[in-house]
Amino acid sequence: MTALPLLPAPDAPGLTRAIRGTDQTGAPVEARVIEERPLTIYLNSQEIVTAMTIGDHPDLLAIGFLRNQGMLRPEDRVTGVDLDADLGVAVVRTDRPTRHEVQTGKKTRTSGCAIGTVFGDMMAGLEGLTLPHAEVRSSWLQALSRQINTTPSLYLEAGAIHGTVLCRGDRVLVYMEDVGRHNAVDKVAGWMWQAGEPGADKILYTTGRLTSEMVIKAAQMGVAIVVSRNGATQMGLALAERLGMALFGRAAPRHFLCYSGFARYDPEPQPAPLAVRVVAG
Amino acid sequence: MTALPLLPAPDAPGLTRAIRGTDQTGAPVEARVIEERPLTIYLNSQEIVTAMTIGDHPDLLAIGFLRNQGMLRPEDRVTGVDLDADLGVAVVRTDRPTRHEVQTGKKTRTSGCAIGTVFGDMMAGLEGLTLPHAEVRSSWLQALSRQINTTPSLYLEAGAIHGTVLCRGDRVLVYMEDVGRHNAVDKVAGWMWQAGEPGADKILYTTGRLTSEMVIKAAQMGVAIVVSRNGATQMGLALAERLGMALFGRAAPRHFLCYSGFARYDPEPQPAPLAVRVVAG
Repeated sequence: MTALPLLPAPDAPGLTRAIRGTDQTGAPVEARVIEERPLTIYLNSQEIVTAMTIGDHPDLLAIGFLRNQGMLRPEDRVTGVDLDADLGVAVVRTDRPTRHEVQTGKKTRTSGCAIGTVFGDMMAGLEGLTLPHAEVRSSWLQALSRQINTTPSLYLEAGAIHGTVLCRGDRVLVYMEDVGRHNAVDKVAGWMWQAGEPGADKILYTTGRLTSEMVIKAAQMGVAIVVSRNGATQMGLALAERLGMALFGRAAPRHFLCYSGFARYDPEPQPAPLAVRVVAG
Repeated sequence: MTALPLLPAPDAPGLTRAIRGTDQTGAPVEARVIEERPLTIYLNSQEIVTAMTIGDHPDLLAIGFLRNQGMLRPEDRVTGVDLDADLGVAVVRTDRPTRHEVQTGKKTRTSGCAIGTVFGDMMAGLEGLTLPHAEVRSSWLQALSRQINTTPSLYLEAGAIHGTVLCRGDRVLVYMEDVGRHNAVDKVAGWMWQAGEPGADKILYTTGRLTSEMVIKAAQMGVAIVVSRNGATQMGLALAERLGMALFGRAAPRHFLCYSGFARYDPEPQPAPLAVRVVAG
């Protein structure tokens, strides 16, 4: 079991590369760029997808992706993940063939169909899903925003990256980053699956927009409270309303815009503002 | 022919929706969210992909996507685009079957393969590609940053959106926005294809990161100068270097970080700084 919190390791070798650029005066500038590499994910013998990733937790990414796509189901048991860093391959093995493999093994599909199919599969998995009765407190949101903004990260080191953070109460548990925001949230999902952690008592914080895909992934993970420093899209909001998910956008330590599910928010007793009396002099 | 510049129409009906959220004090807040809807793109009778889009230029998005994926080739002639707004379908028609249809029509592919395949196809199209001898001037970058930052847009109206801007010299020609940055650049590509506009004298400005996909798309469009207010990823940079593309990141009116291709930059004569003499008093 990994020690918590599991935080970004911006200085780890292989995640960033020092490059030499040029500024507007022609002077050389040292900067760091994020490395990205392809990872091809297999479910047993079936090739599923090739994702571009920073490559820090390929096992969690593979499991989380399959879980969030509904290709791994609660009843499936993962027996291991075989990694080949040179080939950029992660093979997730289960003790018996998954329903996904059985269903798709014989089908013929044309190029390009998969993106739409994946989306359809994800929506199908939401039917009948009920989110837990989670709440979020004012003081938690404030503390989490502060912690996340100041935690050393690839974002602070090099920019051009998305982050997703799994929190409980006012504590950061797992902070994942990746070049695509989907990978970051999938890695969090993979961690939850491996650790057997439920979503009911969690808050999911993301640096990216609150799109339909982000809302669907959070719902698949059983998380009812989703927070972003960014805004929501209309489909993200519509889905969140249908699911009864609390969606907080434009989140900063002292402000937010709650798009849906405000009933899940506990403002707590706030310190009374100082009474100021102006006495005519 | 559309009048230029072709700019965002943030007030157009259907692009944003007024919603009522709640702020941290519990007070209602009016805000706008971006609409997004699925668009399924066909190449003649072959279904290619379903993209989530704001829906403002489905014909340009369909053509540009197919063009940037190499599924439409320079020798193909588009005879029309059939749109069905209710079904969310765009059918791009050519005068004869494309090479893509002939090659893929009989193949069997498994679910999920398409994303990797699409990426492979795009890289293949870059072999032997030579970018034009374009240059960019200091004054152009300054003028473009200012114009783009102040042009009324969905970004300024509602946030949570990406923009891609096609420019020539210091002038904005076509400014497209979409929920995915790929759609925005694909719409620009669709416009270029329809208008028969070459990339040689153009600058592509994007609000998003300079990823490998963005660099590949720019190269497919024949554009050698790519600018972003964001940073580059390592694969974006590596590809740009291989292609001889000039990549300007972190662009603001008075600053940038040139990642590659600085030889394409003309600093122009800058006004000499005022000579200041300090006279001991």
